[in-house]
Amino acid sequence: MKELPLWQEVQADLQEVEAELLRQVDAPDPVLSQAARHLVQAGGKRLRPAFAILAAKCCGAPLERVLPLAVALEMIHMATLVHDDVIDASPVRRGRPTVWARWGQELSLHTGDYLFARSLLLVATYDDPRIPSILASTSVKMVQGELYQLAGAFDLEVTLRDYLKRIYRKTALLIAASCQLGAIAAGAGEDFIRHLYHYGRNLGMAFQITDDVLDMVADPERLGKPIGSDLRQGVITLPAIYALRCSPKKQKLVCLLAKRDKTATEILEVIDLIKDCGGIDYALGLAERYLARARQQAIFLPEGQARDTLMGLTYFVRTRGI
Amino acid sequence: MKELPLWQEVQADLQEVEAELLRQVDAPDPVLSQAARHLVQAGGKRLRPAFAILAAKCCGAPLERVLPLAVALEMIHMATLVHDDVIDASPVRRGRPTVWARWGQELSLHTGDYLFARSLLLVATYDDPRIPSILASTSVKMVQGELYQLAGAFDLEVTLRDYLKRIYRKTALLIAASCQLGAIAAGAGEDFIRHLYHYGRNLGMAFQITDDVLDMVADPERLGKPIGSDLRQGVITLPAIYALRCSPKKQKLVCLLAKRDKTATEILEVIDLIKDCGGIDYALGLAERYLARARQQAIFLPEGQARDTLMGLTYFVRTRGI
Repeated sequence: MKELPLWQEVQADLQEVEAELLRQVDAPDPVLSQAARHLVQAGGKRLRPAFAILAAKCCGAPLERVLPLAVALEMIHMATLVHDDVIDASPVRRGRPTVWARWGQELSLHTGDYLFARSLLLVATYDDPRIPSILASTSVKMVQGELYQLAGAFDLEVTLRDYLKRIYRKTALLIAASCQLGAIAAGAGEDFIRHLYHYGRNLGMAFQITDDVLDMVADPERLGKPIGSDLRQGVITLPAIYALRCSPKKQKLVCLLAKRDKTATEILEVIDLIKDCGGIDYALGLAERYLARARQQAIFLPEGQARDTLMGLTYFVRTRGI
Repeated sequence: MKELPLWQEVQADLQEVEAELLRQVDAPDPVLSQAARHLVQAGGKRLRPAFAILAAKCCGAPLERVLPLAVALEMIHMATLVHDDVIDASPVRRGRPTVWARWGQELSLHTGDYLFARSLLLVATYDDPRIPSILASTSVKMVQGELYQLAGAFDLEVTLRDYLKRIYRKTALLIAASCQLGAIAAGAGEDFIRHLYHYGRNLGMAFQITDDVLDMVADPERLGKPIGSDLRQGVITLPAIYALRCSPKKQKLVCLLAKRDKTATEILEVIDLIKDCGGIDYALGLAERYLARARQQAIFLPEGQARDTLMGLTYFVRTRGI
C-alpha cells in the first residue's frame, strides 16, 4: 500500500514515526537494541500509525499530539509479531530473517515483552486515562485471539462466526483502536471517536480477509514468503471455510486440509480446489462488504484531506498485491 | 515467610487478593483460564501484594483502595515467571509442573502476555497517571534485567556492581514499586512515597541476595527444586563472585564454574568451595546491610501496626528457610 498516491498524505508523518520508533527501541542492552532495530528496519506498512495519524488529523489535531500514540501502536504490533515468530518458529518475515532466527528464543521473547512495556510507557505521557485503558484491553483481547487460532488449528469444523471473531481480535481490533485512539488523542467528541472506531474495525476485517486471500493467490516474491503458509500451519481461513461448505470435491479437500505435513504439491492442490469452487471470490466479496461499511462510517467524519484519504484507502485494501 | 506471625497482619487481605486473582485470570478461552488458574494455585508468597497493602495501610488507606493494584502487581510477577519458565525450560516450579511443562511453549508465551495486559487493564481503573506509568517503566527495566542475566551467563568476569544492578532490576525494582505504588494509591505525600520506595528497594535487594544464598544452602524440599540451579544455568551470584575473588582454590573454582554441564557432584563441590572461603557469610552480611537501610527508611513512616509489620519483616528476610 506504500506505493499508492493516497498514502502520500501521511508519508512525511510516517518518516517521523520511523525516526521516533528507532529512538524508542534504543535500549541500554546492545543486543536488545540491535534486535529491536532489526525489527524496525524490517519495515512494514506502518498501517496502525498511519490510521492513528489520519484519525487525529481528521479531528483537527497536529502530528505532535498523536506521534507518541502512533509509535506505541506500531511497537505493540511489532511485539505481537516477534512473539508470533517464536511460536511459529518462522525463519523469515518480509523477506528478512526474523529476530527468532537470528538471536534465538530468549531474546525474541524478551524483545516482545520489552516493546510492549515501552509502548505502555510511551502512552503514559497522555493525560487521558482512556488511552492506556483501551490499549490494555485491546492487548488482552488480541492474546485471546491468538489462542483461538492456536485452539482452532486443523479444526475443519471452524465456522464463519469463529473465523470472524478470530480475525477481529487478531487484526481488526488494533486497527480499530488505532483510529479510535487517534481521535481520543485529538480530543474529538464521542461521535467521531465512535465512527472512527467502526471505520477501523470494518477496514481491519477487510484487511485481514484479503491478507488471508493473498496467502493463497499472491506472487510469493511480493508476499515475502511462500504461499499457503496458513494451510501449512492448519489455520483455516475464509476461502477454505467456504470451500469446505461448497466444494463439489469436499471429501478430497477435507483429507488434504486435515493433513499435518502437506507437500508443496498438496498445498497447490488445496488452493486449486478452493479457487475452483469460488472460495476466493466469496472471501473478496465479504471483504468488499466490510469496506462498504467502513465507507459508511467515514461519511460522518469532518470533511477534509484526511477524511478523503481514509475514504480512499477503503478502495485499495481489496486490490493490493493481487 | 507465610508462617511468621508478623505476616498474619495481612493474611485476611491476602485471601481477598487470592480470590480477586482467580477472578482476574478467568478468560473466555478454557485452556488459558486453566493455565492461569494453575499458576495462581501454584501459590507463592504474594510478597508484592503484601507490600503494596502494607504500604497503603501505613499511609491510612483501606484495602479496597489498593486491592486492584495488589492483584496487578502479582499478575506482573506471574507473567515474568511464566516467561522465565519458557526460557529456562523449567519443568517444575514450587514443586508443581510449570505451565510450560504442562501446556507447552505457545500457551506459556500467551499466558504471560495475557497476564501482563490484564494487569495493566486493572491499574487503568486508577485515576492517578503515575500508577500505569511507574508499572510500565518498571516492566521495561525488568526486561532489561533479564537480558543482563542472559548476557552474563557463565561470565566469570561479572563484578559486584553488575550483580547488584541485575538483582535490582530482577527483583528489588518490583518490590520497591509495590511499596511506592501502594503509597500512591493511598494518596500519600511525596515523602512517604519516597521512603516506601527505598524501603522496598533495600528489602528487595536483601531478599534476592538471600534467595541466591538459599539456592546454594537450602533444604531442597523446602526450596521446591534441587539446589544449585543458578550454578547449573551459569548464573553467577554474590557468593560465587566473592569466592572468585577470595577463595584460596580459585583455579579449581574457575574451572568448575565455567563448565557447561556440571554433574551433581561438581555442583556440590562448587558450593563447598564457596562456603569454605566465606562466600555465604559475605552475602548474608551484605543482605544484612540492605535490611538495616530498609529499617532506616521505615523509621520515617507513620506509626502504627502496618509500619511495625514492615519493620518486623526486615528481621525475617535474612533467616527464612536457612
